[in-house]
Amino acid sequence: MKALKESIVKLNSEEAGKHHKQFEQLAENLEAEGFNVEEITKKIADFQVAIPSWALGTGGTRFGRFPGGGEPGNLYEKIADVGTLHALNKSSGAISLHIPWDIPDDTKAVKELAASYDLLFDAVNSNTFQDQARQNHSYKFGSLCHTNPAVRAKAVEHNIEVIKYGEALGSKAITVWLADGSSFPGQHNFRKALSHTLDSLGKIYDEMPEDWKMLIEYKPFEPNFYSTVIPDWGTSHLLASKLGEKAYCLVDLGHHLPNTNIEQIVATLMLEEKLGGFHFNDSKFADDDLTVGALKPYQLFLIFNELVEGMEDENSKNPYPAWMIDASHNLKDPLEDLLQSVEAMKLAYARALLVDRNELEARRAENDVTYCQEILQNAFRTDVRPLLAEARRRKEGAIDPISAYRKLQIREKLIAERGTNTLATGL
Amino acid sequence: MKALKESIVKLNSEEAGKHHKQFEQLAENLEAEGFNVEEITKKIADFQVAIPSWALGTGGTRFGRFPGGGEPGNLYEKIADVGTLHALNKSSGAISLHIPWDIPDDTKAVKELAASYDLLFDAVNSNTFQDQARQNHSYKFGSLCHTNPAVRAKAVEHNIEVIKYGEALGSKAITVWLADGSSFPGQHNFRKALSHTLDSLGKIYDEMPEDWKMLIEYKPFEPNFYSTVIPDWGTSHLLASKLGEKAYCLVDLGHHLPNTNIEQIVATLMLEEKLGGFHFNDSKFADDDLTVGALKPYQLFLIFNELVEGMEDENSKNPYPAWMIDASHNLKDPLEDLLQSVEAMKLAYARALLVDRNELEARRAENDVTYCQEILQNAFRTDVRPLLAEARRRKEGAIDPISAYRKLQIREKLIAERGTNTLATGL
Amino acid sequence: MKALKESIVKLNSEEAGKHHKQFEQLAENLEAEGFNVEEITKKIADFQVAIPSWALGTGGTRFGRFPGGGEPGNLYEKIADVGTLHALNKSSGAISLHIPWDIPDDTKAVKELAASYDLLFDAVNSNTFQDQARQNHSYKFGSLCHTNPAVRAKAVEHNIEVIKYGEALGSKAITVWLADGSSFPGQHNFRKALSHTLDSLGKIYDEMPEDWKMLIEYKPFEPNFYSTVIPDWGTSHLLASKLGEKAYCLVDLGHHLPNTNIEQIVATLMLEEKLGGFHFNDSKFADDDLTVGALKPYQLFLIFNELVEGMEDENSKNPYPAWMIDASHNLKDPLEDLLQSVEAMKLAYARALLVDRNELEARRAENDVTYCQEILQNAFRTDVRPLLAEARRRKEGAIDPISAYRKLQIREKLIAERGTNTLATGL
Amino acid sequence: MKALKESIVKLNSEEAGKHHKQFEQLAENLEAEGFNVEEITKKIADFQVAIPSWALGTGGTRFGRFPGGGEPGNLYEKIADVGTLHALNKSSGAISLHIPWDIPDDTKAVKELAASYDLLFDAVNSNTFQDQARQNHSYKFGSLCHTNPAVRAKAVEHNIEVIKYGEALGSKAITVWLADGSSFPGQHNFRKALSHTLDSLGKIYDEMPEDWKMLIEYKPFEPNFYSTVIPDWGTSHLLASKLGEKAYCLVDLGHHLPNTNIEQIVATLMLEEKLGGFHFNDSKFADDDLTVGALKPYQLFLIFNELVEGMEDENSKNPYPAWMIDASHNLKDPLEDLLQSVEAMKLAYARALLVDRNELEARRAENDVTYCQEILQNAFRTDVRPLLAEARRRKEGAIDPISAYRKLQIREKLIAERGTNTLATGL
Repeated sequence: MKALKESIVKLNSEEAGKHHKQFEQLAENLEAEGFNVEEITKKIADFQVAIPSWALGTGGTRFGRFPGGGEPGNLYEKIADVGTLHALNKSSGAISLHIPWDIPDDTKAVKELAASYDLLFDAVNSNTFQDQARQNHSYKFGSLCHTNPAVRAKAVEHNIEVIKYGEALGSKAITVWLADGSSFPGQHNFRKALSHTLDSLGKIYDEMPEDWKMLIEYKPFEPNFYSTVIPDWGTSHLLASKLGEKAYCLVDLGHHLPNTNIEQIVATLMLEEKLGGFHFNDSKFADDDLTVGALKPYQLFLIFNELVEGMEDENSKNPYPAWMIDASHNLKDPLEDLLQSVEAMKLAYARALLVDRNELEARRAENDVTYCQEILQNAFRTDVRPLLAEARRRKEGAIDPISAYRKLQIREKLIAERGTNTLATGL
Repeated sequence: MKALKESIVKLNSEEAGKHHKQFEQLAENLEAEGFNVEEITKKIADFQVAIPSWALGTGGTRFGRFPGGGEPGNLYEKIADVGTLHALNKSSGAISLHIPWDIPDDTKAVKELAASYDLLFDAVNSNTFQDQARQNHSYKFGSLCHTNPAVRAKAVEHNIEVIKYGEALGSKAITVWLADGSSFPGQHNFRKALSHTLDSLGKIYDEMPEDWKMLIEYKPFEPNFYSTVIPDWGTSHLLASKLGEKAYCLVDLGHHLPNTNIEQIVATLMLEEKLGGFHFNDSKFADDDLTVGALKPYQLFLIFNELVEGMEDENSKNPYPAWMIDASHNLKDPLEDLLQSVEAMKLAYARALLVDRNELEARRAENDVTYCQEILQNAFRTDVRPLLAEARRRKEGAIDPISAYRKLQIREKLIAERGTNTLATGL
Repeated sequence: MKALKESIVKLNSEEAGKHHKQFEQLAENLEAEGFNVEEITKKIADFQVAIPSWALGTGGTRFGRFPGGGEPGNLYEKIADVGTLHALNKSSGAISLHIPWDIPDDTKAVKELAASYDLLFDAVNSNTFQDQARQNHSYKFGSLCHTNPAVRAKAVEHNIEVIKYGEALGSKAITVWLADGSSFPGQHNFRKALSHTLDSLGKIYDEMPEDWKMLIEYKPFEPNFYSTVIPDWGTSHLLASKLGEKAYCLVDLGHHLPNTNIEQIVATLMLEEKLGGFHFNDSKFADDDLTVGALKPYQLFLIFNELVEGMEDENSKNPYPAWMIDASHNLKDPLEDLLQSVEAMKLAYARALLVDRNELEARRAENDVTYCQEILQNAFRTDVRPLLAEARRRKEGAIDPISAYRKLQIREKLIAERGTNTLATGL
Repeated sequence: MKALKESIVKLNSEEAGKHHKQFEQLAENLEAEGFNVEEITKKIADFQVAIPSWALGTGGTRFGRFPGGGEPGNLYEKIADVGTLHALNKSSGAISLHIPWDIPDDTKAVKELAASYDLLFDAVNSNTFQDQARQNHSYKFGSLCHTNPAVRAKAVEHNIEVIKYGEALGSKAITVWLADGSSFPGQHNFRKALSHTLDSLGKIYDEMPEDWKMLIEYKPFEPNFYSTVIPDWGTSHLLASKLGEKAYCLVDLGHHLPNTNIEQIVATLMLEEKLGGFHFNDSKFADDDLTVGALKPYQLFLIFNELVEGMEDENSKNPYPAWMIDASHNLKDPLEDLLQSVEAMKLAYARALLVDRNELEARRAENDVTYCQEILQNAFRTDVRPLLAEARRRKEGAIDPISAYRKLQIREKLIAERGTNTLATGL
């Protein structure tokens, strides 16, 4: 890791001249408009996104999987890969584990390794959407919602076990995503399925440590194709409200019906002080799990615009949301893909910081629709890439992470080390 | 009206032979399967749907309007038209008014006229989506959510006025549908818009009589095209929960994003005891406002399946929902269209009554997905038209309403009476 | 198989009384309306749907697979399963193979086995969406559209090989479904990708026997999530037109964007004499691959309404389309599911045969929209189940196939024979 | 107009310092990357978008209309308004008329007025979606597709009349958009409706001058809600192919089903040499007709990326497409809105000019998906606003058109001149 940092600093020195000039030009222009560039740069530098352990290998679809090489074969290698990302972009300082794909057998060793890369453990994730080998009760027809109390009890127990692993590693939240649902009209009694789920979640909730959060995810379809037990933010919010103060909603960008106004959901949940976490990705059709910002960068900006507004609201008790990437990559090197995703998020965040909120509120008050649009568009049209590069450079991350990744032949080295046939656990 | 009834009875006598045979065959088959045909026929006969005053004339789109003839030109003629429908199908025994399109200047005369047709007054509807002539504050940028307190006050006052009209006529509910929203990113502060709306609704709520309900409608888009203040059931439920026990959600079938599972929303709202009302129509693309059942009759059946399940749940305190048609017709005679809509609703209701709920629950308990589907499909595939005809016949409605409408040349008579150029108020 | 037939006939005799009564009632009513019940019953009896070999085992999603027991482990067992379906419903008289999942090593034995069950071989399917073990060129980035001519050549060669297998078995068509596409903006040069695909298809086309058809499938997304090379009927039609008279379009119901009017596409393709085949399934959200008719039975009827109209058009040279089920089942016994799918198709077909086309055209001519709708709805609302049962009974199939399947404990016997751990090849 | 130009030049002089600095910085950075800034600036300066006459007044929805003030009341005022836009942004040098809303009674005067503002007449538009007063045959049930030959003949005649008006003014194309379709299953015989339409279009086609184009628009729904006669590009292409070399497809961004990949349609149509024209707007849900670029600026860029690629292809015979804005504005000053739309288009165009096509093709050839994405994103993330400002400044347009519009109090002057109650013809 020390060697990687030195290589990065060396590469930066080669690009420093061009970078400095562009940053100075931008800073000068922004200062002229009244922005505090130092403060904005610092906020960008502080921004951290959790990397999910399952995004480090090639994802698949039901039609096939085309793995690349050098994929991490165990938890230690996954941590090392996130460490590499963090060294490059200085914004990937956390990892989100998935049980049972990533059971930390030796907690102490795992924590030390993560610390050596300056990584924290973000929310832990349970899995009741697959049966494990030799499992006595099947999740084929659901888990927390199941008609059979024994299956529900098993799923509750698994979630409690995940919390225990998380505690040992220093996590402070559990993300519950349920595949539970039905694929055919008539299959589910909707009301019983929801009631069972609330009851099961309550049992898990009761076992959470005091300083933990439960993040309840929603999704309208897949892998069930007629109904899901928690299809939308309304249902997630209903459950979180009934469970109590430690229960929050989690928004995954790909988990919405066509044309949903996601930024408005963000605003409503923050108003209700119930936005707990975020899964970032991008999509055109369904839960496509594509690179963040690859399809709809303006929507991403509008979402960050609401997040910044909510986070800067001093009257709100909404906690700082846990953000994580949740994507599944088919065609690219997973590490390059994650670098692109984090970059897209930071661009959106930086542009949202350039929105003059006082001016915006003044224009809104008089319904000057044209200028409200102009204010957002002007922020979005600003080329903020030099701000991100400068924030990284100051922390000895790479001015241009993707370019550095290639120049330093990181993938080639991973293949040399791990071979071409490893297969990461995950989707 | 007496003449109409006599004509109907006469027509029925001509069709009685064929009808009786088909009804007897069906009844015999159903009884053999264990159904109580008398009880089901009575339930169908008791089923009543409110007709909205604005559906009695030809609707339009932004691209044009092609009015037919003989449309009602005032409230009295609208009541007469609903009376005609009710005489034919015996299930249109209520009318839903819209203020200011239908201001009842002479309450007594209006009530007496309605009573003469055996009609009740269902929920009254306010209108803050259009400016009236010489209006001092405009709803161009919203009403209950407006940034300007004076506009909000005006809209609150209008809603209270609508309640007063409703009280005078014997209505027991106000339906609030808001066009409020934004068409461009940046235009709205989502959080303020929602907070203002809650505040305004609270002021209206406080003026409602004790035995009234407030029905809060939601809609994702149109006439605003980026956001609406109450886009989904989750927001409607949030508002209704905060307002209190007399506030309920109203579901309009056309007000959902593509592929939404509406029957599940119905189930959830009934579980929460917050389903207050229903606007029926059908659609393929957006809020198309087409004839009920014209596009997706199986979805309609699945919705009624949940409604019946919820209504028959003895532990639930959800009130009997107010149901109304809310369609806007372009190409058909509005009265024929409404006859088709009511028929489709009753078919769905009758089929839902043929679902063996005990058997269904037993199959669900063991996850026998195939048979759960079979149970619903068998109910849906049953030809229940003779049941509906019999329920009408017993009340001296028409065995075949559309056919009777044509044979009795009702439209021709209306045109002779009212001319071809009247234009009903409404969309 | 002889034993199965005897068991079926025995079961039928127990249900004969009730069935005959219901059939006679329906026949009498239909004859009274002017329909030729014998002719319709014969058409229903003649209707055959091909079963895809991959639908005989439990399907999976990217999130997991929950296999049942007694699945077919090889081509012979797959043929046997289709034979069972055909014995029960007398409408599953063909099987559609998928290469390389179902390579017929011993053509003679395979053909004899199929003949013993009275089965034909329908269209054969190629597979260029997965890499096979030790494959030298990967389809990761496409097949017929690939930027590398060597990959294209390999994919062409595979398709030609599939044709050879099909010829040996007596198939008369190849279905080409391509997963080719891109998941990220910029990845594809759309114009080159389409041109390469046309060129590759031309090479396959040239190798087809004279009496063969090429069926070109389209799909808007999945497994690629930004673009596919053949996303819609327009592109499929463009390719088929350029290729020649033996090239046709294939419609898969699940391969459309939300709200697409599929029945209109059917009509247009038949007008252009380019509708070659059909993949039936049902879906609510995307390519959900659910049981035919489980979600949108009225849409299915409208599609059959167009198919019947097109097939009965004496001026059209559109060939009789190849129909096949293409579903992938997660939660049900695959054989029960296929019985439900075939039944739903035949119900739709039977109802479409009850549309009085002369009357419909007369009403259309005068734009009597109300009655056009009534005509279709009346056909759809008719309970045609007794017609289907009678058509089966006459051929010694089961009056009630699903019920017979359970009473005869067919799945239990398959599990006893094949065990619980077999895993069918396929999705 | 001379006064306006002088005012603009004066305003520019005040902003010149800041502008020049930003332009110089950008130019320097782009030159360093190898771009020819002069050439790009010139292309941007040459870019012209036609303004539709109906977008100059406040649009409405079926729920109401909230007109602003100073709207143009006749064709002369409409031309004047486009003249104002063109003076400000130097890219609105054409107007697209709609018959019968804009019948040019005095052709000579109209042409002279337009010439005085340096405006050309772009495609003319026919209207068969509304009945005019005292019209003898109604378009209620369609026009070119109508079941009644007399209605078809009338619609054909109207289109030919529109061509005559266009010829007199110097237009070179007619845009045919049909509202024809059906709202209820059964209403249309799809095959006859399409055949009639082809036949009718052929009669119009035969009357077009040799150097004219027919642009055939498609739209999936609205104002009909079950089917339209030309729902998609495939149908438009089918018709254009059969009609002949002068018939082309026209793409309207709002006329697609959810999630359609529009840029791919552009590429396919250009490959087929059948892309004739473009209607720009933006939308979130349906045909929302919002300001161009207000919702999905990256999609707009991807579309321009294909347009630039197609236009620069020397082997293609696709004509230079006719581009026009087609939006309908509710909440903003229509002129401000059009300035925003034109700006968004030019930004997308300018960014598309910054795509290094040789590099992109090289990366595509080796399936370097990560870098293909990077190349497009880098172009899109570049702040090209100074290029647009410079292109305008050189032609004596406004450096900042919206700001100039407000500073010069243009709307206030129009209201003073025309009053607050004028109502532009149109939607």
